[in-house]
Amino acid sequence: MVDIKSLEPKIIDYRRDFHKYAEGGWAEFRTSSIVAEKLVELGYEVSVGLDIAEPEVVLSKPDDEYIEEQKARAIRQGADPKWVEKMNNITGVVGVLSTGRPGPVIGLRFDMDALLIDEEQKEGHFPYDQGFASINKGFDHACGHDGHTAIGLVTAEVIASMQEELKGTIKLIFQPAEELGGGARAIVEKGILDDVDYFVATHVGMTYQGLGLPSNACACGFNDFLDSRFYNVFYAGKASHPCGDPHVGRNALLAACTAALNIHTIAPHSEGLFRSNVGILQAGTARNAIAPNAYMEVEVRGETTKISDYGEKRLLTIIEHAAKSYDVDFEVEFKANTPSGKSDPEMVKIIMEEASKLPWFENVYEEGEVGGSEDATEMMTRVQSKGGLATYIAVGADLSGTVHSSQFDFDEDCMINGVELLTAVVKKIGSK
Amino acid sequence: MVDIKSLEPKIIDYRRDFHKYAEGGWAEFRTSSIVAEKLVELGYEVSVGLDIAEPEVVLSKPDDEYIEEQKARAIRQGADPKWVEKMNNITGVVGVLSTGRPGPVIGLRFDMDALLIDEEQKEGHFPYDQGFASINKGFDHACGHDGHTAIGLVTAEVIASMQEELKGTIKLIFQPAEELGGGARAIVEKGILDDVDYFVATHVGMTYQGLGLPSNACACGFNDFLDSRFYNVFYAGKASHPCGDPHVGRNALLAACTAALNIHTIAPHSEGLFRSNVGILQAGTARNAIAPNAYMEVEVRGETTKISDYGEKRLLTIIEHAAKSYDVDFEVEFKANTPSGKSDPEMVKIIMEEASKLPWFENVYEEGEVGGSEDATEMMTRVQSKGGLATYIAVGADLSGTVHSSQFDFDEDCMINGVELLTAVVKKIGSK
Amino acid sequence: MVDIKSLEPKIIDYRRDFHKYAEGGWAEFRTSSIVAEKLVELGYEVSVGLDIAEPEVVLSKPDDEYIEEQKARAIRQGADPKWVEKMNNITGVVGVLSTGRPGPVIGLRFDMDALLIDEEQKEGHFPYDQGFASINKGFDHACGHDGHTAIGLVTAEVIASMQEELKGTIKLIFQPAEELGGGARAIVEKGILDDVDYFVATHVGMTYQGLGLPSNACACGFNDFLDSRFYNVFYAGKASHPCGDPHVGRNALLAACTAALNIHTIAPHSEGLFRSNVGILQAGTARNAIAPNAYMEVEVRGETTKISDYGEKRLLTIIEHAAKSYDVDFEVEFKANTPSGKSDPEMVKIIMEEASKLPWFENVYEEGEVGGSEDATEMMTRVQSKGGLATYIAVGADLSGTVHSSQFDFDEDCMINGVELLTAVVKKIGSK
Amino acid sequence: MVDIKSLEPKIIDYRRDFHKYAEGGWAEFRTSSIVAEKLVELGYEVSVGLDIAEPEVVLSKPDDEYIEEQKARAIRQGADPKWVEKMNNITGVVGVLSTGRPGPVIGLRFDMDALLIDEEQKEGHFPYDQGFASINKGFDHACGHDGHTAIGLVTAEVIASMQEELKGTIKLIFQPAEELGGGARAIVEKGILDDVDYFVATHVGMTYQGLGLPSNACACGFNDFLDSRFYNVFYAGKASHPCGDPHVGRNALLAACTAALNIHTIAPHSEGLFRSNVGILQAGTARNAIAPNAYMEVEVRGETTKISDYGEKRLLTIIEHAAKSYDVDFEVEFKANTPSGKSDPEMVKIIMEEASKLPWFENVYEEGEVGGSEDATEMMTRVQSKGGLATYIAVGADLSGTVHSSQFDFDEDCMINGVELLTAVVKKIGSK
Repeated sequence: MVDIKSLEPKIIDYRRDFHKYAEGGWAEFRTSSIVAEKLVELGYEVSVGLDIAEPEVVLSKPDDEYIEEQKARAIRQGADPKWVEKMNNITGVVGVLSTGRPGPVIGLRFDMDALLIDEEQKEGHFPYDQGFASINKGFDHACGHDGHTAIGLVTAEVIASMQEELKGTIKLIFQPAEELGGGARAIVEKGILDDVDYFVATHVGMTYQGLGLPSNACACGFNDFLDSRFYNVFYAGKASHPCGDPHVGRNALLAACTAALNIHTIAPHSEGLFRSNVGILQAGTARNAIAPNAYMEVEVRGETTKISDYGEKRLLTIIEHAAKSYDVDFEVEFKANTPSGKSDPEMVKIIMEEASKLPWFENVYEEGEVGGSEDATEMMTRVQSKGGLATYIAVGADLSGTVHSSQFDFDEDCMINGVELLTAVVKKIGSK
Repeated sequence: MVDIKSLEPKIIDYRRDFHKYAEGGWAEFRTSSIVAEKLVELGYEVSVGLDIAEPEVVLSKPDDEYIEEQKARAIRQGADPKWVEKMNNITGVVGVLSTGRPGPVIGLRFDMDALLIDEEQKEGHFPYDQGFASINKGFDHACGHDGHTAIGLVTAEVIASMQEELKGTIKLIFQPAEELGGGARAIVEKGILDDVDYFVATHVGMTYQGLGLPSNACACGFNDFLDSRFYNVFYAGKASHPCGDPHVGRNALLAACTAALNIHTIAPHSEGLFRSNVGILQAGTARNAIAPNAYMEVEVRGETTKISDYGEKRLLTIIEHAAKSYDVDFEVEFKANTPSGKSDPEMVKIIMEEASKLPWFENVYEEGEVGGSEDATEMMTRVQSKGGLATYIAVGADLSGTVHSSQFDFDEDCMINGVELLTAVVKKIGSK
Repeated sequence: MVDIKSLEPKIIDYRRDFHKYAEGGWAEFRTSSIVAEKLVELGYEVSVGLDIAEPEVVLSKPDDEYIEEQKARAIRQGADPKWVEKMNNITGVVGVLSTGRPGPVIGLRFDMDALLIDEEQKEGHFPYDQGFASINKGFDHACGHDGHTAIGLVTAEVIASMQEELKGTIKLIFQPAEELGGGARAIVEKGILDDVDYFVATHVGMTYQGLGLPSNACACGFNDFLDSRFYNVFYAGKASHPCGDPHVGRNALLAACTAALNIHTIAPHSEGLFRSNVGILQAGTARNAIAPNAYMEVEVRGETTKISDYGEKRLLTIIEHAAKSYDVDFEVEFKANTPSGKSDPEMVKIIMEEASKLPWFENVYEEGEVGGSEDATEMMTRVQSKGGLATYIAVGADLSGTVHSSQFDFDEDCMINGVELLTAVVKKIGSK
Repeated sequence: MVDIKSLEPKIIDYRRDFHKYAEGGWAEFRTSSIVAEKLVELGYEVSVGLDIAEPEVVLSKPDDEYIEEQKARAIRQGADPKWVEKMNNITGVVGVLSTGRPGPVIGLRFDMDALLIDEEQKEGHFPYDQGFASINKGFDHACGHDGHTAIGLVTAEVIASMQEELKGTIKLIFQPAEELGGGARAIVEKGILDDVDYFVATHVGMTYQGLGLPSNACACGFNDFLDSRFYNVFYAGKASHPCGDPHVGRNALLAACTAALNIHTIAPHSEGLFRSNVGILQAGTARNAIAPNAYMEVEVRGETTKISDYGEKRLLTIIEHAAKSYDVDFEVEFKANTPSGKSDPEMVKIIMEEASKLPWFENVYEEGEVGGSEDATEMMTRVQSKGGLATYIAVGADLSGTVHSSQFDFDEDCMINGVELLTAVVKKIGSK
C-alpha cells in the first residue's frame, strides 16, 4: 500500500488545477474527463454519461447552447474530447473496483461542481496569490468541491494500491451539479446506489455547534439536512415609455421587487428551521422603458417536509399575487429539490472509531451541522431504503471567507487527512 | 429638382435596411458608414469622428470592449472599414452642402440609434412579416430612428438636386446615441451648431393633445421637453450562504428592491410633470447565496430644472439610504442628461405655412407633445443662444405597438411626406 | 346698505370663533347652530336637517356614536340644543332671502368643516399666538373653511341690508363635510340647487400658475377639479405569537405596508394629472402578536373620469393582491367621490368685471388652479344641468404653512374683500 | 391541610372573575386588590407598591393619565380603594408566610396581566358561551395569566392550611406587566428575590417538542428563553396636500411601511433562533394629507445575547435609514427587555419527582419549550446569582385558539392540578 502522506503534493496539485478551471453544475466536462482518465489508469472500471445517469430525471440542467459552449471551453482547457463525447452531455463519473472476492459494496461520493459566482481576484486571497484563482469568469469553487474531487482521486489511488487486502467492491461516485440540485438524483435513479451496503459522502469544513469545524477535527454524522426546493420565476408585463405612456405599462420589475421583499418576510416556523432566499433577480430592458420582464431564482428550505411545504405554499402565494398586483403574467418553474436525511448511528460509530485512531484528528465529533441542504441525501436515502448504512462526514478545515462567498478558501492540509480517514474506513469495512 | 414621390421605394428600402441591422447608441457604425458614403456620393462635404464630436463630453458611452465588438459586427454586416476607422470610435455623421452663395445656414437633425430591447419576432408584427425585423439581438428600432435616418438620406438627395435654387449652407446632422443621452452634446460641444441660423429636428409619430399624432397630420413645434437625467447605480454587499450563514450576508438584492419601490413612490410635483423610472435591475450571483451585488439603471425627468432637481435629490436620498438599511455600499454614476427646451414661434410659423401647402397634411398643429425628453434640446438651445431659430417637428404616423415596446412599428408613408415638408422648408428659407 | 368695511372686525371675530371650535365633517353642529341663528336674525328663511339633505345619499358619515359625542361636545361649546335637535344628525344650513320680486335665483356656497388633524400649538403660529388655535384636539381649520363660513355670514348681512335694491331670490348654502366628501351631494340630491340660475362657490387662497394666489388677487374660474374617489380598506388576518407560532399568523400589517407602497407606485397617466394617497394606515394589536388587522384610508384622483377609472382599477387590484399575498381577508368600502367640473365662461366674465372694479384686487385672473378636488363640483354640475351658470372663485390670501398642514394660516384681510366681491356680483346679477 | 380537590370550584371562579375583568400590564389594580385582600385573610404578610417595586426601573409603564383611568375603572369594577391607594400607581402583590421555624425561603411567581387585544365575542368561544368573556374592551387574558393568578391564590390557601408542617418562609409573588416586559425587573431590583433559595415560576399550556403540552402532562424545566428587546419608534415627517403640494410632504407612512417590511426581512442567524416583529404600526392624520407621522411597536428576540445584539443592530439601522429615505425624523425609545435564562437541573429533578407521584400527570417531561421570552428569567437569574435554585415549569393544558390570539382558551382542569404540584414541591422542600 502506498504511503498516503507522500501523496500530499499530488492532492494539492489536483485541487489547484480543478480550482483554476472551475466548472459549474452540468458543465464539469474537463473535471470529469480528468477524473475518468485517472480512474482508468488506476484500474477502475469507469462509466460516464447515460451509463450513470437517468436523463429523464436530470433536473436543473442548463440549455443545450450553454452545454455546447461549456464543452468547447472544457476541450480548449484540456478535456479529452473522447471522454467529452462519451459523456453525452451529462457530466459525472463512476469508478468501480471489484476485488473479485465476495464482500460488501462500499460507495464513496465526491461532488465536483463550482458555484456560479466570480472569485475574488485580489491580493490576500490565497488562490489568487498562488496563481490558481479561477480563470473561468463566473465560476468559483467557493464550497470546496475542488478539494472533494482531489480527495476522491487520491483516495482512489490509495484504495487501488491496497486492493489485495480488500474484499467486495469499491464504488467511487464523482457527482455533478450538487449546487444546482439534481446531480445526485440522476445517478440515484439510474440505480447506481442500489447495491451499495456502506455509503460515505464527504465535505471539507462544515460546522460543529455553531462554529466552523477547524482543521484537526472531524464530524462523523449529520442529521440536519434541510428539505430544499428550487424555483425559477418568470414575470411578463408590458413595456411602455415611462413618460409618454406610463399608464400603459405593466411593470414586471416592481412586481418582482415586491415579491422578493415579501418572500423574505415569510414568517419562521415554530417546528424548526426555515429559510428562503431570492438569490437572483433580473428585470428590465432599458432605462427609459417600463420593465416588461423579470426573472428570479428562488429557494425555500425547511428542517422537515412539513416546514418546506409551508414555505412553498407561502412562496407560491406571494409570487402569484405580487404579479397580479402589477397585472403581470407569471410562470413558476420547479427546478430541483433535495430531501432531508439522517446518518445511520452504526455507520457514524465506525467513522468515529477510525478517526480516533488517526493522530491528525484531535477532536472527533459524533454530529456536525450542515445548516443547509445537500443532495447527498438522495444517495443516503436510497442506500438506506435498500438496507444499507449511510453517513455524511466532514473533514474540518480552517476557512478564509464565508462559504459561498468569493473570498472562500480552505486549509489544504485537511485533504490528505481526509484520504487517511476514508481509506481507513474502507479498510475497516472491506478488509479480507 | 428630383421628383420626391418617386423616391418612396428608396426611402422604404433605406428604413428597412437600418431596421434590420439595428444598432444601439454609440454603436451605429454600419448606419454611419452608409450615411457617410451616400452623402459623399451626393456631393456633401462629410465629417465624422473627432471632427464632429468633442470626445471629452461624450456621455453614456459603453466601454471599449463593447465598441470593438460592435465595430467588428458592423463590418461583418457591411460597414465600410474605411469609414469605421475614420470614426475613431465615435459614431455620427455631418454632411455640409455649401451653395457658394451667401445666405443662411440651415441645420437639420436626424438621430440614428436603436433601443436596447429585443424586437418582437412573431407573426402580425409588420417588420417580422416583411422579413426586416432586427437580426441584432438586443437592439430594436422601437422609436422610429430608422425612419429618421431614411428621411435624412432622401432629404439630402432632394436638397442636392435643388442646390442651384438655393443660397447659403445646408448642414445635415446624423446624430448617434439619442436614446442613451449624450449624442447631441458631443456634437454641440464641438461647435457644429454654432453657425446654424435655422434648425429643425424631426421625429415620426409623437402626440397631440394626449392622442397619437396620426399619419396625415403634423405638429410644428414642441415645448414640453422634460429635463431628464440618467444614473447607473451599483450596490455592493456581501455574499453568504442563506442557510449556513445568513446573518453574515449583506443583501444587495433586497436593498435594490427597496430602492426601486421607494423611487417609484417619489411624490409628484405641483409645478409640473415629474417622472421617475427604474428601467433595469440586476442582482445576485446564485440562487443559494445572499446576493452580494445589484445594478440599476434609473432616470428622473421633470418639466423644469427645479422639478428635476427635486426628483434627483429624492432619488439620491433613497438610493443612499436603501443601501445603508442593508449595510450595503453604493455608488451612483451620472450617465447623461438632457435639458428642457422650447420651439421658436417664428420658426413654428414657417413650418406651419409650408405644411399647410402640402396636400398630405390634413391637420397641421402648432404644438404637439413629446411627453418625455430628447437631446435635440441640446442643439436647439445652442442655436438659440447664438441668435438662431430652432424647432422640433413631428411627422404624424399611425403606430402599431407602444413607443419603446418590442411591438412598435410606424406607417412608412409618413417618411416621404416628411421629406416633402423638410425640403419645402429649406426652399422657403434658403431660396436664392 | 351697510358699510361693508365696517364689518371687518366682525368677520374676523366670526372666523376666529369657528377656528377655535373647529368641527370635522358631519360634526359641524356648533357652527351650523350659530349660522342658522344669525340667518334667522337677518331675516332669512332657514332650513336644516332633512329639509336640506337627502339622508339616503349621505356619504362618508361617521357612525352614530361619534355623532352623539360630537353633538354633546357642540352643545357644551355653545351650540343651541334646539338647532342641534332640528338638524336630525345632519349638519349644514340653507338660508333663503326672497325679495318678493320676480328675478333670478342666486346661490352662494360656503363650506364649514375642519380637517381631522391636530393644529400646531406653538409660538409663531398666528392662531396660537392670538389665542384662537383649535381647542378641539384632532380638528383643525387647515383649509380656510372657518374663513368661508365667516365670509358667508357677513355676506348674508350685507345682502340683507340691500334687499330693497334686489329682485329674485338669494340662496346661501352653508355646506358640511367638504373634506370628507359627501356634504355637497346630500344637498344636491335634495334638490336645493335645482332652481339656482347663478351659482358661486368661494375659497380663500388657492393657486395661479403654480404659485399661491396672494392677497389682493383673485381667480374667477376654475376648470381643473379632479375626479376624486375615497375608499376605506379593512384587512383581517390572524394573530399569533411571533416566536411561539409565527407560521400560524396571517400578517395584516405587512399586507397593508405592501399595499401602501405599491399604491404609491401606480404609474402616472399620459392624459393628465393622477394622484393617489394612503393617508392613514393603522395595523396591529400588540407588539408581541402578529398583526391580525389593518385599516387604511385611501384616495385616487384624476383629471378626467378615465384617469380616475384607471387609478381605481390599479388601486383595487393592489389592495386585493397585497392581501392575498399574506393570506389576509379584505374589504373595500367606497366612501365618497367628487366629479370633475368646469366654470361657465359667461359667469367667469361677470366675476372678472366686478372684481376689476374693486380697488383691493390688483390682479384679476380668469382661471386659477385647484390642483385637487372639491365637491362644489357636485353643485356646479347640477346647476349647469338645469340650464344655470356656475363658477368657483378664489379670493387670494397670503398663507403661512402648507394647505392641509397643522401650520396653515391665511391673511384675514382677504375675507372682507371676498364679501365685497360676492355682494357686488349679487348686485350685478340681482339688481331690480 | 385542606382537601385540594375540593377547591376546584373556587379556582375556576377566581379564574373566570379575573378573565372577565381582564386588566393590562401596570393596570392590574382590581386583580392586585383582590389578591392582596385574600392573602391578608389567609394570614400572609402582604406588601404592595413601593415596598415591592423599585420605581426607577419600572419599564414599559403607560402614562399617568392612563393609570388614573385604569384605577378609576378598577374601583368601578370592585377594587378596594384602600388597596389601590396603597399601591401608589404600581401594581403587583407579594405575600410572605413565615413559619417561624428556620428553613429555606421558597419563592413562587404568578403573573397577572392580560394582553392588549380584543377577546372573541362569539358563540363557540368558551368564555363567551359561559358568560365570562372580557368586558374590558381591548384587554384579553389570551395567555392564561388569569389561570396563573387563580393557581396562586389557591396555592396560597393550601400552603396556609399546611403551615404547621412547614419550616422556613414562603414568598408568593404576584407580578404585574409580564407581557409588556418590565414587571419582574421592578420587583427584582427592589431585592424581593435576594433571599429566595428555591424559586418556581409557573405557566399553563406551553410546548413540548414542537407540540402543545396537553392536559395531564407537565414540563419541569425550560432553557430556551429568548433574549428579547422592545422598542417604540416615532417618525415625524411633514403633512401636505397630496394633490396640491405633494412634493412638499415628507411621508412618514411610507417610511414606516418600508421599515416594517425591511425589518421582517432581517436574515436569520446561524447560531440560533432569531425573531423580529412589528406588532403595531399607526400612521397618518387624514385621507387627503400626506402622512406626517408614524408610530411602531417593535421587538427583536434572540436565543443568545449575541443574536439579539445582531438583531438590534439590524433593526436600528433599518429604522434610521427608512426614515432618512423619506427625509423623515425619527426617534427610537427602548421600552424593555428580558434576558435569556436556564432552569437548574437539581430543581428540575425535584419537580419531576413530585409530579411523577401525582396521578394526574401521565407525562412528566424534563424540558419544555417556551419558544419566546418571559421576564421570569429576571427572577430566576437573580435567585441563581445569589446561590439559589430556580426553575420555570409548565402545567400542560389543552388549548383552544392560538396563544396571544383572541380565540385563546385553556382547559381549566389544569389549574387545580397545578396547585397539587406546587404544594407538593413546597412540602418536599419546606417540610419540617
